[in-house]
Amino acid sequence: MQGTSEILERAIEQLAKLPGTGRKSARRIALHLLKQSEESVMQLADALVDLKQSITRCSHCGVISDGDPCSICSNPKRQNGQLCVVEESQDVYLIEKTNEFRGMYHVLGGVISPLDNIGPDDIRVKELMRRVNDEEYPVDEVILALNPDSEGEATSYYINKLLKPYDEIKVTRIAYGIPMGTELEFIDEATLSRAFASRNAF
Amino acid sequence: MQGTSEILERAIEQLAKLPGTGRKSARRIALHLLKQSEESVMQLADALVDLKQSITRCSHCGVISDGDPCSICSNPKRQNGQLCVVEESQDVYLIEKTNEFRGMYHVLGGVISPLDNIGPDDIRVKELMRRVNDEEYPVDEVILALNPDSEGEATSYYINKLLKPYDEIKVTRIAYGIPMGTELEFIDEATLSRAFASRNAF
Repeated sequence: MQGTSEILERAIEQLAKLPGTGRKSARRIALHLLKQSEESVMQLADALVDLKQSITRCSHCGVISDGDPCSICSNPKRQNGQLCVVEESQDVYLIEKTNEFRGMYHVLGGVISPLDNIGPDDIRVKELMRRVNDEEYPVDEVILALNPDSEGEATSYYINKLLKPYDEIKVTRIAYGIPMGTELEFIDEATLSRAFASRNAF
Repeated sequence: MQGTSEILERAIEQLAKLPGTGRKSARRIALHLLKQSEESVMQLADALVDLKQSITRCSHCGVISDGDPCSICSNPKRQNGQLCVVEESQDVYLIEKTNEFRGMYHVLGGVISPLDNIGPDDIRVKELMRRVNDEEYPVDEVILALNPDSEGEATSYYINKLLKPYDEIKVTRIAYGIPMGTELEFIDEATLSRAFASRNAF
């Protein structure tokens, strides 16, 4: 098409592949970048290349990290026997933000999903069992913090079954219930039902 | 903070600077890129660097272009005596998409805005007059297609006044069936196309 630049169109095409970015936003971003200094555009491009080339995963917990082991796994204060199992790296980030948990993590990198052909061997379950069996760092509690969808539930049940033979390990699960600061009126039945079933002594 | 990567945070920080991208979307984009192949991330980074380094502006009409003159100015079929005056390069793109206009463009690169200290000398008005006076390519119609806001209106009036002495040049303006107070960017193609077809004598 006339009246446009192939270089611009190529940048728009690339930007439009990003999640949550349609062609209109991609165009707005590209025209915005054209107005920025060359230095700031280079910084963005470098950061993206670096992201892909320099980032690694912690070989212990599996979290996205600048180094291996990650800052949590290499922190002796956090070896308190608690191991929190999550689906993805960003879940570690979210839980760390709460300042509630001071133990270690294990990132599965997915959940069991027969429909997507993802079985226990496709996620980091073996690595979890290796850590549970590691006598140097004894585990006394495994906290399951997977998403409350059917795949997360199935994966939690599966891991719980694997850990049954370990009498010294307590398996817990984060509480699923009514989110804080909301009203019952806006809560779906499944959540309300779960909140009822897992009610606590007041 | 523990549980995160500085490289990841730096990429998020850079992405969050893009228009329409908050920290949450920036994080989602960064984690999405981490899952992509190195090749596709490189393609994105290259496209952004290329955007800034290789793109130029047409010295005739001022549009963002891969070459100078641009594909429109170098197309002899489009030298039909019609000159459409727009504010920014993206307006050329939007008008080209309608397939309504087959003449040439002139990108002002802004509008007169006393509040922002932008006067006629800060936008490409002189270049417009030079083209109007160029006897090699006679202009017989100048079509004003500026945004229908007060700056666009003021600029239209200013240019109309400058062109008054040229009896052989008809000054027209795209029809504003477009609601006032909006911008060309947000108008659908059909409306823009209609507005072009029903342009009136200014």
